[in-house]
Amino acid sequence: MLVTPHTEELREARNARDGSLGFVPTMGFLHEGHLSLVRRAREECKTVAVSIFANPTQFGANEDFASYPRDLQHDLELLEKEKVDIVWTPTAAEMYPPGFQTWVDVKNLTVPLEGTHRPGHFTGVTTVVAKLFNSVQPQRAYFGHKDAQQALVIKKMVRDLNFPIEVIICPTIREEGGLAMSSRNSYLSDDDHEAAKILWLTLKLVKVAFDDGQRNAQLLREIAMRSLASEPRATVQYVAVTDPETLAEINSSTNHALVSMAVVFGKTRLIDNIIVGAPATVSLADSSFKGDSCY
Amino acid sequence: MLVTPHTEELREARNARDGSLGFVPTMGFLHEGHLSLVRRAREECKTVAVSIFANPTQFGANEDFASYPRDLQHDLELLEKEKVDIVWTPTAAEMYPPGFQTWVDVKNLTVPLEGTHRPGHFTGVTTVVAKLFNSVQPQRAYFGHKDAQQALVIKKMVRDLNFPIEVIICPTIREEGGLAMSSRNSYLSDDDHEAAKILWLTLKLVKVAFDDGQRNAQLLREIAMRSLASEPRATVQYVAVTDPETLAEINSSTNHALVSMAVVFGKTRLIDNIIVGAPATVSLADSSFKGDSCY
Repeated sequence: MLVTPHTEELREARNARDGSLGFVPTMGFLHEGHLSLVRRAREECKTVAVSIFANPTQFGANEDFASYPRDLQHDLELLEKEKVDIVWTPTAAEMYPPGFQTWVDVKNLTVPLEGTHRPGHFTGVTTVVAKLFNSVQPQRAYFGHKDAQQALVIKKMVRDLNFPIEVIICPTIREEGGLAMSSRNSYLSDDDHEAAKILWLTLKLVKVAFDDGQRNAQLLREIAMRSLASEPRATVQYVAVTDPETLAEINSSTNHALVSMAVVFGKTRLIDNIIVGAPATVSLADSSFKGDSCY
Repeated sequence: MLVTPHTEELREARNARDGSLGFVPTMGFLHEGHLSLVRRAREECKTVAVSIFANPTQFGANEDFASYPRDLQHDLELLEKEKVDIVWTPTAAEMYPPGFQTWVDVKNLTVPLEGTHRPGHFTGVTTVVAKLFNSVQPQRAYFGHKDAQQALVIKKMVRDLNFPIEVIICPTIREEGGLAMSSRNSYLSDDDHEAAKILWLTLKLVKVAFDDGQRNAQLLREIAMRSLASEPRATVQYVAVTDPETLAEINSSTNHALVSMAVVFGKTRLIDNIIVGAPATVSLADSSFKGDSCY
């Protein structure tokens, strides 16, 4: 397993390999969610590359960049076990040298949901992912459905800018009890960790209501709000029932929706989502490079 | 010579070829300036690809997109003679399908000069060039020094977004009499065509003054303005003496400058430039993928 912080060394290693290359971009502090992406890439591609880079430009001024958890040694041990070929650990100094001034923006899809609460976040995401894609040049790139809006935004960027890359969105991996795996779970106190189970309980409640025939988006939203309100440690930022392709809020009845939420516990902001109706992932209808789902 | 409007067919043709690929993006209505880029690519690369696409997003609302000259049949004859391998002629409908919403922006370098007079122009340029690069996947891409700011902006985008591409900037090709070759020269009346020679005469005058020891940027600007004022058919938009790397206006003395101008004749807007001092092209000092100059 080659481990390098240097873009040029990454490029040489990449160019020395032919056949399909699968790529898993991460911010490190790896958990089973990341590893599920790595395993999928390992199954499907001749070469597997992983990047570990806590990208400063996707954190807001009041967000947790400085405290974002890091454990490179442990990450590398995990990736070694998964038989990853290349690990790229670029530095912020190399990614954003003095004079850096080029940004990639996906306009409409980045406005609602996370975009409302994290201004500038997606510009940082799409810009760094464009840089990672151009450096690693994968045939396939793997993202988790926990960050559903991010997955959709990246698929849109890939299609709009003609990246020759298939974006594959894989299911959210959950702890026992249902909390979606996230590096940020490490911030949670024991009590908050326990309380945060309300996210998945709430999403399951909405899905049961939908499957039982409740198609009114506003009533589905209210079911979720009431459920979250039952947990005093939870401060809701948003609960949304949106079109899974456009992310437009649904105001009438729906047969297919992304139910997503952001909830704060203590100082820790968590997000989660579920799709009700089929298909079970966010998607872009007519992508020329189809990211077929893991479901 | 494969000629196709289809991105998928382009990709197949591109992927069937190994070795270096040189790429010349054009808006068509080809002249000796374009052909000089094609010939340089032909000398240096195993495969040569040319795109012909009058990109609507880089034209302002009051600019000449609708009337921009087109002659695909003649273009293809010229490219056939230069032994080009692949010609890609995408349609606006394929490049910008409904729902397109992703833009690439180089921030600082796009502010002065053309940026001041053509708001939004460079966003269209960098976005389409990113799309062309991702579709063609060249090792080398060739641009003309006549559009010096564009060349610099593209080099900056390539570096900032880690495109694995060497950008090569080639000298401006001129008509007898010195007018820089441009598809827009076809708009000029005979009188304006004759009058437009004042651009190159003016640039040469500035260079003579510089080479004779005049290092005061303001005085060099004044020499240019006086020279252009001698031609009653010329309406000056700007004359600038700037740093060739940052495009910052120089207010004191200079040993190396980009002297650039935009001048309108009738309804036709022409640009031209020259570098005084060495090196003789615009450049970015520490590009990881160096575009070595043709000079």
